Parts: sequence; C-alpha cells; structure tokens
Amino acid sequence: MSERVQEILGWYGSDCPGTRMNLARLLNHGRLGGTGRLVILPVDQGFEHGPARSFAANPEGYDPRYHFELAIKAGCNAYAAPLGFLEAGAAEFAGRIPLILKLNNSDSLTGGGDPCPAVTGSVDDALRLGCSAIGFTIYPGSGARNEMFGQIRALGEEAKRKGLAVVVWSYPRGGGLSKEGETAIDVVAYAAQIAAQLGAHVIKVKPPTGHVEQAAAKKVYEKQRIPVGTLAERVRHVVQSAFNGRRILIFSGGEAKDTPAIMEEVRAIRDGGGFGSIIGRNSFQRPLGEALEFLGQVMDIYAGKTK
Amino acid sequence: MSERVQEILGWYGSDCPGTRMNLARLLNHGRLGGTGRLVILPVDQGFEHGPARSFAANPEGYDPRYHFELAIKAGCNAYAAPLGFLEAGAAEFAGRIPLILKLNNSDSLTGGGDPCPAVTGSVDDALRLGCSAIGFTIYPGSGARNEMFGQIRALGEEAKRKGLAVVVWSYPRGGGLSKEGETAIDVVAYAAQIAAQLGAHVIKVKPPTGHVEQAAAKKVYEKQRIPVGTLAERVRHVVQSAFNGRRILIFSGGEAKDTPAIMEEVRAIRDGGGFGSIIGRNSFQRPLGEALEFLGQVMDIYAGKTK
Amino acid sequence: MSERVQEILGWYGSDCPGTRMNLARLLNHGRLGGTGRLVILPVDQGFEHGPARSFAANPEGYDPRYHFELAIKAGCNAYAAPLGFLEAGAAEFAGRIPLILKLNNSDSLTGGGDPCPAVTGSVDDALRLGCSAIGFTIYPGSGARNEMFGQIRALGEEAKRKGLAVVVWSYPRGGGLSKEGETAIDVVAYAAQIAAQLGAHVIKVKPPTGHVEQAAAKKVYEKQRIPVGTLAERVRHVVQSAFNGRRILIFSGGEAKDTPAIMEEVRAIRDGGGFGSIIGRNSFQRPLGEALEFLGQVMDIYAGKTK
Amino acid sequence: MSERVQEILGWYGSDCPGTRMNLARLLNHGRLGGTGRLVILPVDQGFEHGPARSFAANPEGYDPRYHFELAIKAGCNAYAAPLGFLEAGAAEFAGRIPLILKLNNSDSLTGGGDPCPAVTGSVDDALRLGCSAIGFTIYPGSGARNEMFGQIRALGEEAKRKGLAVVVWSYPRGGGLSKEGETAIDVVAYAAQIAAQLGAHVIKVKPPTGHVEQAAAKKVYEKQRIPVGTLAERVRHVVQSAFNGRRILIFSGGEAKDTPAIMEEVRAIRDGGGFGSIIGRNSFQRPLGEALEFLGQVMDIYAGKTK
Amino acid sequence: MSERVQEILGWYGSDCPGTRMNLARLLNHGRLGGTGRLVILPVDQGFEHGPARSFAANPEGYDPRYHFELAIKAGCNAYAAPLGFLEAGAAEFAGRIPLILKLNNSDSLTGGGDPCPAVTGSVDDALRLGCSAIGFTIYPGSGARNEMFGQIRALGEEAKRKGLAVVVWSYPRGGGLSKEGETAIDVVAYAAQIAAQLGAHVIKVKPPTGHVEQAAAKKVYEKQRIPVGTLAERVRHVVQSAFNGRRILIFSGGEAKDTPAIMEEVRAIRDGGGFGSIIGRNSFQRPLGEALEFLGQVMDIYAGKTK
Repeated sequence: MSERVQEILGWYGSDCPGTRMNLARLLNHGRLGGTGRLVILPVDQGFEHGPARSFAANPEGYDPRYHFELAIKAGCNAYAAPLGFLEAGAAEFAGRIPLILKLNNSDSLTGGGDPCPAVTGSVDDALRLGCSAIGFTIYPGSGARNEMFGQIRALGEEAKRKGLAVVVWSYPRGGGLSKEGETAIDVVAYAAQIAAQLGAHVIKVKPPTGHVEQAAAKKVYEKQRIPVGTLAERVRHVVQSAFNGRRILIFSGGEAKDTPAIMEEVRAIRDGGGFGSIIGRNSFQRPLGEALEFLGQVMDIYAGKTK
Repeated sequence: MSERVQEILGWYGSDCPGTRMNLARLLNHGRLGGTGRLVILPVDQGFEHGPARSFAANPEGYDPRYHFELAIKAGCNAYAAPLGFLEAGAAEFAGRIPLILKLNNSDSLTGGGDPCPAVTGSVDDALRLGCSAIGFTIYPGSGARNEMFGQIRALGEEAKRKGLAVVVWSYPRGGGLSKEGETAIDVVAYAAQIAAQLGAHVIKVKPPTGHVEQAAAKKVYEKQRIPVGTLAERVRHVVQSAFNGRRILIFSGGEAKDTPAIMEEVRAIRDGGGFGSIIGRNSFQRPLGEALEFLGQVMDIYAGKTK
Repeated sequence: MSERVQEILGWYGSDCPGTRMNLARLLNHGRLGGTGRLVILPVDQGFEHGPARSFAANPEGYDPRYHFELAIKAGCNAYAAPLGFLEAGAAEFAGRIPLILKLNNSDSLTGGGDPCPAVTGSVDDALRLGCSAIGFTIYPGSGARNEMFGQIRALGEEAKRKGLAVVVWSYPRGGGLSKEGETAIDVVAYAAQIAAQLGAHVIKVKPPTGHVEQAAAKKVYEKQRIPVGTLAERVRHVVQSAFNGRRILIFSGGEAKDTPAIMEEVRAIRDGGGFGSIIGRNSFQRPLGEALEFLGQVMDIYAGKTK
Repeated sequence: MSERVQEILGWYGSDCPGTRMNLARLLNHGRLGGTGRLVILPVDQGFEHGPARSFAANPEGYDPRYHFELAIKAGCNAYAAPLGFLEAGAAEFAGRIPLILKLNNSDSLTGGGDPCPAVTGSVDDALRLGCSAIGFTIYPGSGARNEMFGQIRALGEEAKRKGLAVVVWSYPRGGGLSKEGETAIDVVAYAAQIAAQLGAHVIKVKPPTGHVEQAAAKKVYEKQRIPVGTLAERVRHVVQSAFNGRRILIFSGGEAKDTPAIMEEVRAIRDGGGFGSIIGRNSFQRPLGEALEFLGQVMDIYAGKTK
Repeated sequence: MSERVQEILGWYGSDCPGTRMNLARLLNHGRLGGTGRLVILPVDQGFEHGPARSFAANPEGYDPRYHFELAIKAGCNAYAAPLGFLEAGAAEFAGRIPLILKLNNSDSLTGGGDPCPAVTGSVDDALRLGCSAIGFTIYPGSGARNEMFGQIRALGEEAKRKGLAVVVWSYPRGGGLSKEGETAIDVVAYAAQIAAQLGAHVIKVKPPTGHVEQAAAKKVYEKQRIPVGTLAERVRHVVQSAFNGRRILIFSGGEAKDTPAIMEEVRAIRDGGGFGSIIGRNSFQRPLGEALEFLGQVMDIYAGKTK
C-alpha cells in the first residue's frame, strides 16, 4: 500500500478494520489507486431528475449495466447509485469495482417545502450487494435537518459496526439560505464541517463561490482575512474546514458543461488540496469514447500527469 | 423453462433463489406461461371504490372465491388482492394460481390532501397465505412521498430476504402534478424509473398519453426528438425508462370500456415491448363467460396468436 | 358441533386452529350457541360517554362484575369491554363466558378534529385475561384513517398469530361524510367491505338507512336497481358486501329505545341474513330482570322461536 | 394481613402476585397500614413549578433526602417523585418506605397548547430504584389524549408484567373543558372512570366541585337525582364511578392552605368512602414539626381516631 | 481517593459501579483532580457556529487533534465534543483524558421555530470511543420539550445501564421565554432543577443574571427574600436548586471575552459553591500558550491557590 494511502487510513483510527479495509478499497482501486485522489462515478440522476433528462442524450445510459462498464473502463475509484441500479448489475460485475449504495434520494415530481430525501435503501442492502460504502445526502439549512441528521446518525453507526465506509453528500439548501448562499464559501465550508462532525469518512460538496452568506461569518472572514479569492483558495479553506484535511473531501462537477472549464475547476480542486471529483452527468451523458477520454483527462490532472 | 423466462430471470441476479423462483412462478403460470408476457387479475376495487361500485354489475364478484376462479379459469399469471380477499380463498385454492398480496390500500370515503394509502398487510401475511409476491402502490408526486417510499423500502427489503417478489403500482398523483400530468409520457416514464430504482421486480403503470408535463423534461424530449406520437412508441419509451427493458413492466387497463379499444391498447403495449396487462374492472364486472372470452382475446394478442 | 357452525368456520380456512377454536367458542356459547347467530354484550360506554351517563339509570352497572353476570345470565355469546372492566372480573368469572377485549377507545371530553380512538390495550392483555377475541373500532371516512388501519393491521396480525379472533367495529365518521351519511346504505356497506378486507373475522356495523351518500355510488344503486327500501333489504345488501355473507356481520342496537321498535329491527336483521346483534345500553341500563327478558326476546327472534 | 387489605387485594384478581405484593406493601406500610386507607407524599413540584416556588418556603426541601425522611417520619404509605429525586435517595433509604416513580412530568417554562407531559422515566428505572409502583399523569380533555393514553397503556402493561403497581393521576384539562370544568363533578367522575378503564390500580383525582360541565351529563344528573350537594356526596359518586369502589381512589390536597379547611376536606373524603389523600405542598412547605403534626391529624381522621 | 471525591460519589448511590467509576475519572483527572472542582474543555462550536467563526482566530483548532492536546496540556478534567471530532482523535489519545461525547447538536444554518438539536451520536458510540460520559443539551422552555426530554430519558437510561455518566447542558430557550429570561435567576435555577430531576449526574448552566422572569416566581423570591444580588449569591441559589448541592453543577463561560472579567466570574462561581467551569471559545480561540496560561489561572482559582 502506498504511503499516502497509509497516511490517509491513519486518520480513521477509531474505525474497525472492516471499515478501513473498505476505505482502502476505494483509495486503491482504478487509475488513481494509491495516489490518495479519487474520481467516483455517481448515477442517481434517473431518480433525481427523471429518465429522459438523464439518459436521452446518451441512450446507452438507460441500461444499468452501462454505468458499471463506464466506471470500470474509465478506471474510476468507485461507482455510486441507488438500490435499483446497483441490484441490476451487482451480480454481473461483482468484484470489478467498489460500489457505493446511495441510501436516500429525492425526485423532481414533488416540489415545495424544506427538502428531505426519502430513505430508499439500507445498510444490509449495501452488504448483500457487496458494496464498500453507503452514501447519504444531507441538506444543511433545511427545516428537516433533524430528520436527515438522525437518519445518517443511525445508518452511519450501523455501517461502521458492519465494516462499511460512510460517504456524505452535504448540500446546503432550505428555508434559511438564499439560492446564492447554497454555494457560498462560508456555507460550503460549514457543510463540510457538519458532515465531518456527523462522522462521515468521505465528504462531497459543491465547488464554492466567493460569496459569503451569513453576516456573523462575514465578520470573521474579513477580520481574519481568510483568502477566498480563487477557487483553489476556497477549496483549501473547505479542506481545512473538514478537520484540517484529515477527512477525504471531494467535489461534485456542478453545472459546468464546457470541458476546458471543467478541467480548470479540477486543477483548482487539485491545487487547493481537494481529494478528487465525483462526476455524473458530465460523464455518462457523453458517448462512451468521449466519456472515457474526458474522465482520463480528469484523472491525469489528479495524478499530476498534466499540469 | 423457456429461454425467454431464463433471460428475464437473468436480470434479477442480485436476488436470492427464493425470489427468483417466485418470479419464475409468475412467468410460467397460465396461458401465457413461458412467453415472458403476463396478464394479472387484480381485485382491490372493493376497498378502493366500495362494494356496490365494484361488484353490483356482476354480483358474483361479491364472493371472494369468484375472483380466484375467474383468474384460474382465464389462465391468468397471477391474482392480486388485499388481505381480506386473499384470506377468504387462499386455503381453498392453494396451489392453483400464484397470489400477490396488496400491502396498501386507499378508500373513497376519505378525501383531500396528498394521497397516501394505508398499510393493510405484511410480508409475513403474504408468506402465511402462500403468496409469490407482495404488491404496493406508490404515488410519485404526492407530498407523502417519503412515507410511501420508506414503507416500500422496508417491505421490499423484507420480502426479498424472505424469498418473495415485489410488484409496485406506480401512479403519479399529488400536489405537484396537473390531472393531465398524471398520465403524461414524461411523468409515467419517470414513475417507472422510480419504481425500478426503489427495487421493484415488476412495475405497473398506466398507459401514457402524448402530453409532456414538466418544462425541464419537455426541452429534452424536443431536443432529443424522442418519439412519443403513438401509444406503441410511448410504451417503448417507458419500457426503456425501466432499466432499458430489464425490469418487467406491465400496464393497467385504464378507464377504457369498449372492448375493441382495449384490444387496440393491448396491441400497442405488445408492439411497444410491454410485458403485459393487469386488468381488473374490465374482467370481473362482466359475466364470467364474457370475461373469459375477453381475457382470452387479450392473452391471444400477447401470445402473438392474433395480430 | 352444529353443521351451521362448521359451515361458518369453513369460511376462515386461512386462520390457525387457535383462532378457529376461539371463533367456535363465540358461536357455540350461550342460548344461541350452535345457531350461527350471536348476541354480544358490549360495555364500553363508561369510557365513551362517562360513568353517570352510562350507569346512573341502573347503578348496578357501576360495578364491573354486574356486566359479567348480566352477559352470563342472559346467555349472551360473549362479553366485550375495555381493559379495566375486564381486569376487574376476568379472574372471578374465568371460563364462564367468552371475552372480547376492546383495544381502542374514545372519550367525550376531547372534541373536534377527525376521530381516532386511543389504543388502550394489547393482544397480550387479551391473552393474559383469557379472551377469545380482540375488538377494535375503525372510523372509515376519518382523516386519521391510515393511523387506525395501520393499528388494526398490526394488532390483527398479532392476534391471528396468537390464536385470537378479530372483531372490528366499523363506524363511518369524519371529514368526508355528512351526519346522515354515517348510516347511509352505501357507506355502511362500504364500511363492512373495508373491515372484511382488513381481515376482520367478525364485523359490527350500524343498521343502515335508505339514504345513499356518495354520488358515484348513487349512480350504481340506481342503474343496478339494488333493493334498499326495507331494513331487511339493506341488511341483505350489507351482508352481501361483507364477502357475500362469508364473514360474520352483526349490528349495533343504535339509538332506538322503544322495545317493540328494537324487536322489529332485530327481525329485519334476522330476515336480511344478519348474524346477530351487539346490544349495550339497551341491556345494561334496564334493571336486571327487564334486561334478561329483553335479551331473551332478542335471542328468541334470532333462534327463530318467535316470528 | 388485615381483612380489609385482603378484601382490597381481592379486587385485583387479574394481576400477578408481584403486583399484588406491591399493592399490599402500599396498603400495609405506615401509620395507616392495614386500614385500607392511604396517605402518600408526592414531591414533583420542583419539576412542575420550579425549585424556588416549591422549596423556598421550607428550604430543607431543596435536599432530596428531606422528603424521604418526612414521608418516613410521618408514617406515610408511600413517597412519590420523579427520577432525579428518587435516584438521590433510593440507596440511602432503601427498604424504609414504598416508592412510586413518577414517569411523566410537565414544567412551567413551556406554555400554551394542549397539555402533554414529557415521559421522564421508565419501568426499568422503577425496578432498579426498588419502587413498588409507577406513577403517570393523564389529562383527559387534552387534544394529546391519544399520546398520553398510548403511553400509559404501554407502560402499564410493562409494569404489570414486571410486578409493579400502577398509579394514575387523572387531571382533566385541555381544549374541550372550561377552567371550572376541570374540577366539575361530572368531569372528575369521568376522569376516575377513564383511569380505571385504562387499568390503573390506584387513581388520584382532585376533590370535585358541585359544578356539572357537560350538557349531556347534566341531563342525567338531574333526571337520576344524583346527590352531589356536599363534598362527601361527590366523593361517594366519584368512588362509585371508579368501578363501584373496587379501585383505590385517592384525592389530592388541592389549593387549600388553611389547616382546618383541609381537615374538613379530609373528613369529607373519608365519609364519602375515599381511600385517602396524596398531599404535597401542604406537607413539605411547612417546617418539619408542623408537617408531621399536620400529616398526623390527616391520618388520625382516616384511621377514625378523630371525628 | 480524596475525601471530597468520596463525598461526591456518595451522592450517586443509585448508580452502578461503572457509572461511579466514570464519575471518579472525571473528578480525579487533571490539575483539579481530587478537589471536587472541574474545568472541562468543550468544542462543539464547529458544529454550532461553523468552522471559520470557531477556528479562524486560531487556525490550529481546525485540526481535531489540537483540542485533545489543549485539554491534556492544560490539565482539564475532560474534553467534550461531537462524534466526528472525537472519532478523529480517540484512538491516538486513548487513555490520556476522560472524554464526553456530545449526543445532540444544532447548527446555525437552520433558523426559526422552537429550538431542538439533532441527535448525532449514540451511547454505543460513546462506548466504542472510550468515553466516560455522554453529553446532551436540553432547551427548557422550548415547544419541543417533550422530544428532548424523551431523548435524554432514553439515552440517560441506556448510559447508566452501560456504566457511563450523564452530563446535561440545560439552556432555557424558546417560545415561552424572553431573551433576557434565558439567563434570569429563576429560570436558570429551574433549568438546573429540571436537569437534576431528569437524572443528570453533571449539570451545565449559564451564569445567571439578577433578572426574575416569571411572575409566579417573582412573588416567592420577594416573599422569601432569596438573596440574588451578587453572582456568588445567585450561583449559591442555583447550586441549592440542584438538589441542595448534591449534583455536580458547572457553569459555561458565557460571552465574556475580557480575561479579568472571566476570572471575576470564576471567583464568584467558586465562592457560590459552583463545581467548576466548562470553557470553550475562551480557550481554543487563543494561541496555545495564552490558552494554557488562561486555563491555568482559572484552575488556580478553583484550587484555591489564588484568591
């Protein structure tokens, strides 16, 4: 095992060997295996946005096997999806790539109110499907906070007892936040902190903007002159906010569609000390060849093979 | 076992042998046994609409034994009903036809609010009654989404652990949808996707119209030129939306009352790659002879014996 | 055992021997034992209406032992009451009469809102008190439907597993119904159907009026010319709605206070195929001698000894 | 054991020997031991009204040990308090006096809404502290009725299974009642009936006034000419409403502060057939000597030593 | 073991040896070990206020190991933090300082409504991390009282059964209180009483002001002339309100930032009989050297080494 991976595993000293083994699986698999960086393929958009919006651009994606194959061929560290998508391929692709079962999901048919996903899977589901980790979305800022935090508390405890890793998507959203505030630097850093305090091993946030949302935070950012001018600086601040870099922190690809823009974002994440990316739509909505090339470029950046 | 049934069972590789055996029972029973097509008789209208509205047209239907006999004589693949109706015949007709216990039901005495059926049976009830599957209705689009999704999550997990198959009725309905939107092509396709992601083995939806409900979906349907002009095309799109055809997808008979119109609908389902029909009121509200002839015609279409 | 009782037990083929034995106890006990008809004494009015309104007219009724004695001396098939009343006599009168523990109750101190009784006893309470059955009230039409249906689902499943019978009081009431609608023929028939579908062995409804509440039902009653002109006809329709007579359906005494009027009602129930009566206030609010004579008359009608 | 105690225990024939033994402990302890009368010291005012309002008048009462000593020295039948107060003395005073653990409590910092105490202890807490009984407050008339009744249902069942006695404080309060109605004779009698039906072994109510709250009850009280003119008559009616005197019914001291007035109330309770008093503030807010003299007078009245 | 510690342990006679051993660990550790006084380092501000507001002033604090080291070097009695912070150091610092796992937490992204923290850890988490105690925040005065009290009831019972101590942060807040009332002397004393009655072993409150919030309390404070003019007097009253000093009562550092002011407060707490302080922001937001000096001064005051 690489020194970097051993160093990272060292941060999780409170976890049982089973959980650390599964973290090692995530870190050691694929083209970035051993580097301490990760690129994960997540495909929950069929649930979250509907099938046509997710898969019509590249209809191969309607087939659940396609995403296993894409993640394997691209050399991703792991593939993350809801129950149905994993059930539809876990046997056929058993042992080929670490799996992450997303345990809660929203859809776009129900609107309004403070956001709170439905719980759609269990830790035992993750075990029977051979997964290495559970995934769970929280929406800090939502009025349903206690429900979501209570769910991940219980699921996380069970996952750790049963030797799985815990990946938390931490997306601020809800009554107390402006739309702009959802990606504000103070709010994203706070979201990373909350996920870490809730016991996540791996944390996923969105790339933060330079906006500062909360007045009480603004005073501190100004007084302490926290540098948040560039994306790399902001990534560095969020990494710091996740236990000073001692928790694996990865970033979603966000809305960006233009490949050069994405690569610039990836470079900033890398330079700011981020651990990697979790890239869904920008991967599986392209034809396979393009997607492999695209993911290859991303991985090359993280691997330090390209600037 | 026919090659087609073996192929279908191959899609459910994550399931235990018990569940696959019960899926095989559904697929191998009756006149369509072995074809990969299914016609199921469901009788929950007594609960949903009341006894007179359901059975007065053909009073034999007040007797729970009638529906067992109808399903057996017609050569249906399975008979689905709520707890009381199955308890009243399961012993007498044991081993004669696969049974599906509907685990939740609504009635028409309580109105208003976002729809959420009452849970009226358990997985252990299904086991003690000798059922092959549980049935469960979800209403995507309802504000009670999390409650329903959470229930099927738990019931589905238990059913799979205990070797049963899971059939999900996925009927969009609720605050976020227009009346027309409940059968819109984008919404029905989405409903099929959700049921599949929730882990259903068999999914029941309504035949979709050409209406597209959601603005974000409309853009995609237009950009990608998804063909939804004919019912067969729409069925094909919904089948694709259910894991590219790798989940059994069947259609309800809907409101149509005119026999030729129903047969045309059935042909479109067949031609679009649908797996079959679940036909309640159009069967048991006719006199027995007529019902058998009617169901025979439907099965002949699916069996490819008639155009 | 009489042929009629054997026939009735035959309807409950899905139940375990313990439950069928307890159904047989109800059917074989008392003056109507073996006839397939039942007269049950229920005393939950102390809880539902308060002590003075229930017992001041005949103060003997304040004493819980009185009702055991009344039911035994009158030769009733069973005695039904809430936890406290049964606890206060179950030991002293053990083995003298089948008991039904009412597991939920309302009081008249809390008003407003959709009705939902409090759960006040358990299946294990019923077992330790030597009961033959549990009793449970549902209010179809109430916005709290899912809560009540969910409770009886769980309690009914447990009772059946532990060899008890399940008696459901099905009283339509709540936001969706007019006051007149609570006893409308379509609504009472629907209430009987719901209780049967929920798995009740014995169903108690109120004598229906000729009013038809729901527009969708009215069309069917008129089109199918369902006869509901006389009480006997209406009883026949409700019996039919309870699985075509294959569930034990009994009627409450209602508000009637005049003895001849009650006897006429009882005759109509008998002639319409009803299985009997459950008579509370009209029994225990009379002096013992009058009550015994009154109940004797009712039983004679059911036994066919008087016209 | 005295005949009276044996007679009383005879009313609880449905209970296990452990529970009857604990009822005997309550009845046999202290100066009134064996008489069938009880005087219990309850100290939950620190929780309900705050420490200064409860204990500043006699600061010894801040110390939890004081109340154990007061109850022991006065010769009370039992001492009742919330978890913290009992934990703080149960070891030191083990075996000196029967204890009752109050399992739910309110405070005066949160106002408004229908009253519902917080559950603050468990049956297992009562067992580990060596208690003879659990105590629980219900507020009949509150919109939170189902929650409270459901809690005492479960706690009472567990207590009876584990050999403890169940004491219910039944205080009508909430949306459906006027302030005056909370102590109206019809409402207090109803509250006693509800507690008895819920399975309480010992019931505590407030001394009722002559007011009749509910119109439907008023008609009955007038028609049946129920005597409620004097407190003794009203006590007799409430005792009757608690299963015709076959449940132990005790009365709280209420607001009265004047010793002669209290003694007159106690005499009325005795003469009306009440089983005793539960006196908190009027005991522990006096200096120890006065309190002992005061409680001694009360007990002498119940023992029949003074008129 | 010192006599004082033995005396204190004597107050917890109802607890099992495991719990008393853990209380002894808290009392015997660090520079104040054996004195019966405690200074605890709590670091939940990252969760409660966000990372930058908590740690930017002294960026070492982003690293979870920093707080372990600070607490150890300063000679604190214990270190208290949420799940994530303890998981990130419990293995590395095992056996170096007693730990308290905070089991519920709020964040500042969700506003409005009655306050109720999310449950974020379990008793079993505390055990696997080697903690001596659980920590839990209640907000007396909140409309969510029953939820919080019910949670600590269950968690406290489990903790005591499993040999842990229970520390309760009791912070009045919510609909029924004015902002000023949250630290009013009557309200803080009441909050201490509630925590004690709920079974807390150690209680944390805020230093009270001289304001009296509740009218009913005001009458008593005036009538009984309770001295609340100085902070020491007020501390004495709150200590008295926590079972007359027989529960360990400590005080938070509050908002004060000026070191001399804090030391004056600490002297008042000591002189009023308080058991110590729990000081977060005023410790870890200073550079390490200053923080050690600051905490040293506080401990010297409690140890009686300085006036």
